[in-house]
Amino acid sequence: MTPLRLGMVGGGPGSFIGPVHRMAAELDGRIRLVAGAFSRDAARSRAAAAGYGLAPERGYAGWRELLAAEAGRPDGIELLAVAAPNALHFPVCRAAAEAGIPVLCDKPATATLDEALALRRILRRTGTAYGLTYTYSGYPMVRAARDLVRAGRLGRLRKLVVDYSQGWLAEAVERTGNAQARWRTDPAQAGAGGCIGDIGTHAFHLAEFVTGERVAALCAQLTSVVPGRRLDDDCNILLRFAGGMPGVLIASQVAAGARNGLRLRVWGERGGLDWSHETPDRLLFEPLDGPAELRHAAGPRLPAGHPEGYIEAFATLYRDVADALAAGRPAPDVPGIEDGVRGMAFIAAAVAGNGAGWVPLAVPDEAEETP
Amino acid sequence: MTPLRLGMVGGGPGSFIGPVHRMAAELDGRIRLVAGAFSRDAARSRAAAAGYGLAPERGYAGWRELLAAEAGRPDGIELLAVAAPNALHFPVCRAAAEAGIPVLCDKPATATLDEALALRRILRRTGTAYGLTYTYSGYPMVRAARDLVRAGRLGRLRKLVVDYSQGWLAEAVERTGNAQARWRTDPAQAGAGGCIGDIGTHAFHLAEFVTGERVAALCAQLTSVVPGRRLDDDCNILLRFAGGMPGVLIASQVAAGARNGLRLRVWGERGGLDWSHETPDRLLFEPLDGPAELRHAAGPRLPAGHPEGYIEAFATLYRDVADALAAGRPAPDVPGIEDGVRGMAFIAAAVAGNGAGWVPLAVPDEAEETP
Amino acid sequence: MTPLRLGMVGGGPGSFIGPVHRMAAELDGRIRLVAGAFSRDAARSRAAAAGYGLAPERGYAGWRELLAAEAGRPDGIELLAVAAPNALHFPVCRAAAEAGIPVLCDKPATATLDEALALRRILRRTGTAYGLTYTYSGYPMVRAARDLVRAGRLGRLRKLVVDYSQGWLAEAVERTGNAQARWRTDPAQAGAGGCIGDIGTHAFHLAEFVTGERVAALCAQLTSVVPGRRLDDDCNILLRFAGGMPGVLIASQVAAGARNGLRLRVWGERGGLDWSHETPDRLLFEPLDGPAELRHAAGPRLPAGHPEGYIEAFATLYRDVADALAAGRPAPDVPGIEDGVRGMAFIAAAVAGNGAGWVPLAVPDEAEETP
Amino acid sequence: MTPLRLGMVGGGPGSFIGPVHRMAAELDGRIRLVAGAFSRDAARSRAAAAGYGLAPERGYAGWRELLAAEAGRPDGIELLAVAAPNALHFPVCRAAAEAGIPVLCDKPATATLDEALALRRILRRTGTAYGLTYTYSGYPMVRAARDLVRAGRLGRLRKLVVDYSQGWLAEAVERTGNAQARWRTDPAQAGAGGCIGDIGTHAFHLAEFVTGERVAALCAQLTSVVPGRRLDDDCNILLRFAGGMPGVLIASQVAAGARNGLRLRVWGERGGLDWSHETPDRLLFEPLDGPAELRHAAGPRLPAGHPEGYIEAFATLYRDVADALAAGRPAPDVPGIEDGVRGMAFIAAAVAGNGAGWVPLAVPDEAEETP
Repeated sequence: MTPLRLGMVGGGPGSFIGPVHRMAAELDGRIRLVAGAFSRDAARSRAAAAGYGLAPERGYAGWRELLAAEAGRPDGIELLAVAAPNALHFPVCRAAAEAGIPVLCDKPATATLDEALALRRILRRTGTAYGLTYTYSGYPMVRAARDLVRAGRLGRLRKLVVDYSQGWLAEAVERTGNAQARWRTDPAQAGAGGCIGDIGTHAFHLAEFVTGERVAALCAQLTSVVPGRRLDDDCNILLRFAGGMPGVLIASQVAAGARNGLRLRVWGERGGLDWSHETPDRLLFEPLDGPAELRHAAGPRLPAGHPEGYIEAFATLYRDVADALAAGRPAPDVPGIEDGVRGMAFIAAAVAGNGAGWVPLAVPDEAEETP
Repeated sequence: MTPLRLGMVGGGPGSFIGPVHRMAAELDGRIRLVAGAFSRDAARSRAAAAGYGLAPERGYAGWRELLAAEAGRPDGIELLAVAAPNALHFPVCRAAAEAGIPVLCDKPATATLDEALALRRILRRTGTAYGLTYTYSGYPMVRAARDLVRAGRLGRLRKLVVDYSQGWLAEAVERTGNAQARWRTDPAQAGAGGCIGDIGTHAFHLAEFVTGERVAALCAQLTSVVPGRRLDDDCNILLRFAGGMPGVLIASQVAAGARNGLRLRVWGERGGLDWSHETPDRLLFEPLDGPAELRHAAGPRLPAGHPEGYIEAFATLYRDVADALAAGRPAPDVPGIEDGVRGMAFIAAAVAGNGAGWVPLAVPDEAEETP
Repeated sequence: MTPLRLGMVGGGPGSFIGPVHRMAAELDGRIRLVAGAFSRDAARSRAAAAGYGLAPERGYAGWRELLAAEAGRPDGIELLAVAAPNALHFPVCRAAAEAGIPVLCDKPATATLDEALALRRILRRTGTAYGLTYTYSGYPMVRAARDLVRAGRLGRLRKLVVDYSQGWLAEAVERTGNAQARWRTDPAQAGAGGCIGDIGTHAFHLAEFVTGERVAALCAQLTSVVPGRRLDDDCNILLRFAGGMPGVLIASQVAAGARNGLRLRVWGERGGLDWSHETPDRLLFEPLDGPAELRHAAGPRLPAGHPEGYIEAFATLYRDVADALAAGRPAPDVPGIEDGVRGMAFIAAAVAGNGAGWVPLAVPDEAEETP
Repeated sequence: MTPLRLGMVGGGPGSFIGPVHRMAAELDGRIRLVAGAFSRDAARSRAAAAGYGLAPERGYAGWRELLAAEAGRPDGIELLAVAAPNALHFPVCRAAAEAGIPVLCDKPATATLDEALALRRILRRTGTAYGLTYTYSGYPMVRAARDLVRAGRLGRLRKLVVDYSQGWLAEAVERTGNAQARWRTDPAQAGAGGCIGDIGTHAFHLAEFVTGERVAALCAQLTSVVPGRRLDDDCNILLRFAGGMPGVLIASQVAAGARNGLRLRVWGERGGLDWSHETPDRLLFEPLDGPAELRHAAGPRLPAGHPEGYIEAFATLYRDVADALAAGRPAPDVPGIEDGVRGMAFIAAAVAGNGAGWVPLAVPDEAEETP
């Protein structure tokens, strides 16, 4: 199966989400990053391309160049990832849609509602495929939560609380060189929403995704807690769903000390669900009566029992090996043959001494081995 | 930077660890799988190669063919992953070492201690790079634990307990078609150790890796709990480290209901460490006095606050997109433009209605939009 | 030190909180229950008195009789606990205050705000001591949280979320014989607030107690989720504190599957606090930078390391003994001499066999012992 | 119902367990402490009696005096608690048994196995009731665990791990004035076992209590980790149960940073149990297949949802009230009428403003109230 060829807009030097797009896109071997407009600076974009292992000439200085040049290649991109600030979402997605290139775009969809409506019209007209990286809906236990709701295990839904607390904007880091913070707190690049646009929308989508219900009205308290900040950095919102269900959405980027604490709780007539991003492979279902059910993900890539992150730990060993080979030196953190010998000596001692009490664990030193 | 070219032995149809090797190797963009001896059956190996997105002719029918053919290519493999049953580890690693191909091999090192000693001699003679996938040493917080020990935060070490409980062999699944179970419970393929070789060695390595201390003697209780099983499936072992420190190593594959519960605790004169695979990005340090310290990983690929597994969730969205595009149909689980529009309407309503009490969340239907 | 003599209003047959008042009052040996108006039915009140181990004549048929009769005794009550439905709080507290009897009353203070204001005037005039059982402020780690705030560890406060979720009113149990539910859902007995009066006030007090800040405005969404219920059973409330700090108060008694999940989180410029009633002897402090601090209570009655509830487990052994002695039969759940002998045999075998490998654990049967 | 009259041996000044015995004995109102031999010093024993609220003359200078004097009173003790160092257990229990006074004695039973065997003979001959405070068997969820085993939910048992880690003896506190540590590390007072006698026996009893199985053989590694300590302070023991089941018992009092971490895990053919003293009101049952069950105690004294420790928090309010009344001053930590008024204002504002957006929370100051 030949992988789909992926292009990217954004994700250049200093970007957090660009490398994540690349890793995520390629993880299952179905998609391969081949080109990108990683920076508006031509040299930086070419360097970024090389850093991603791509031909430097496929690192373009702008998204228009990217779309134009790739359209002319027989091996041009077949899918576009948009990992640029919000203000770019609309023009890039519009152009890609007009060109018939499927898009996977970061949230929020656009900088304004009007842009989103316009994009919807364009997508309907062109029929181009389009997706948004509301990432949390990709967790197996988030989907399992939705399936429990759909299957009626909770009965009619009655209440929802979704809470997303971060602390990385607790100080005015946008004024001390944090590029991520700078554009997110700048209305020209982020749009009208700060915290509400950046993570409030994640929480909002998660709530509607799992429940299948739609928010009909809301009552918002948005605050700019850090002095001088131009967009909200803290949100507390009462929700009313179409069927009358009450709810609460809480989001903060000034919850000092918090990391990325997204949690969703939903209660229905017959029980409640609780999912937390801190332990994403668990889902708690508490029925009206009887013991709570603690469900564990058997993820799509690993058998039950290997928590999410296992692949990343494994990858760290490989990265260490690649680093060491590139540098022509050993990989000190990667277990080696001494570890291997010790492991075998451990097995041998345990098996030989099983039930017999204490035995030494003696590992022959090579110098002592008889030739 | 051109990626290293990786070959694999094993990891064909039905393998759990083969795809993990591929994903882990490629995650950081430093290594690319290009060839493999995925099966002893030529057709199956070629099919597996294609499944991995490789040229079918680089799916070989055996590891000897793999090494010979790749040695003759200008773009031949530069690194070999060994993901085959234990009995193959020694001959494959020996041949790779003799051919000067660096190896990353699954644990345990070999099937017997004698093989491991022989492999050590070969590696020293040839100077070939060699690594073992004691995967847990790749977790950031396992390395952080080791660093705390090295930095003297615990003082002189006094006690260690390592515990690895699985339940997947609680029934005799090796007799009902589970290929993973079959070779692991067969002395001809697994060697002398069952549970102790498969996961006891993981626990053993973790204990020595974090503490830097070496086990000097042990007292083992290995049991074959499931009737008819030929190798141990449960291990309880008292440890005595070189400096006299007492310890316990517990491993089980018949702990019915357990998933992959690896946990390490180490205590020293000045405090204790606690790391658990269930929450791999946390590390608890409890000093002799004062509050416990709960440390969180800022992993090597994501900023603080994104728990391990985030990349995998993200990758699921990409996989869904690839599936949908391949099938020429929408991706129902991937958020789309309606979600995007709703998100923008949510932001707009919250910002406009901030502090003003209740406002409707009205999303214009396209049909109703004025053209 | 002679214990204070306590009287109680309410707390008769079927009451949950009455026996809790008695146990809590007497736990430290400083107070002793001596009298009560446990029921409006004279015979039931006398029976309840006997059940509490009191002289039956000190079980009165009404609180007026209680106050009058006890005032005439040289050993009359010195403190009054009010454990009756909300509507009784005002008249009882007023009468006690006028009589100069100190009061400890269940929350909420009264049935209406006007009553509370009137009671305040009376208390100020009479100078009678008065307390409210906002129980959660009695937890050591709640007080430790307040102390951290006071000590400035969080810096200036910025946000607060308090959440109290219960599920016991998820069904209309007030119509199927649950006495606790009946009065709490009846405006005539509970006052204007259902969930908000019963547990919302707990959350409200906890928020103000820990932070030392005062709510200045609120925006409420109260719902009667269960059809036919006359008072709210679910509350979501936005808060604005006097200094401008935003906050959220969530309370529910229809969160099916939830037990008694009270949790408080407060964030300031320098870090955040997290306390949860599920693990009441822990307090998490997450500073802006560095590892989180997990603090554990060394409660007022036990050395560090004995979690709250230890006394209750201990008490269960005593209760079993009392039951058994009363019935003239053995206490099957209380460890006995066979357990004692086995324990000593265990110690003896471990000490004698220390380091020597396996030894039997042989417990001599009495019949086999040489006389 | 008249409470049983309890006497105590030990539990005087500086004792941790004496006050716990008193609180636990009296919690359910079935037993009342009336006398004790709290100290060998007559004046101190009388003072301790007064501290417990008893007549000073019932604080005796020795257990012989206690038994003799109480036997001559019409209101003499009916039950004896033994809270003295291990070496006293045998003579006191023997004398009580001969006198026909039921006993509840701290663990371990005696200082030596021979004493325990002798005590068993005496108890059988005299028929006197006898119990041991293996406290953990009093937790509701420990009993629930036993019931699950008995009910066959785990199937035939296969493995057990019990682990009890404390850190309070990580330093040589017995040489710096800690009375608890002094006698526990002194063979003359504690017997042959240090850690194994003090907490290893708790773990041992818990294992046998929950499983109903009996240890048949063991293999012990006892260590005196702290230099100069005469008894073991760390224990690791392999267990073999009568039916062949393997197991591990771990206990330590030098696990620096640990508090009182007792945990029991048991696995059978059909699933596993996990109970931990840190969250004593939870019990995890993980079946062979399907979601884990997280069970919560509905304890014997509180409805479901009130975690253990609630009574103690409640009691703290009462204690504060007693302190304040004794000192003739207010109780600053006990909520008072201002809190009550604020709570009522909160309810009133929320109910009046429900659904209407923001309303002020205005609490009338008394001075401003119109008369």
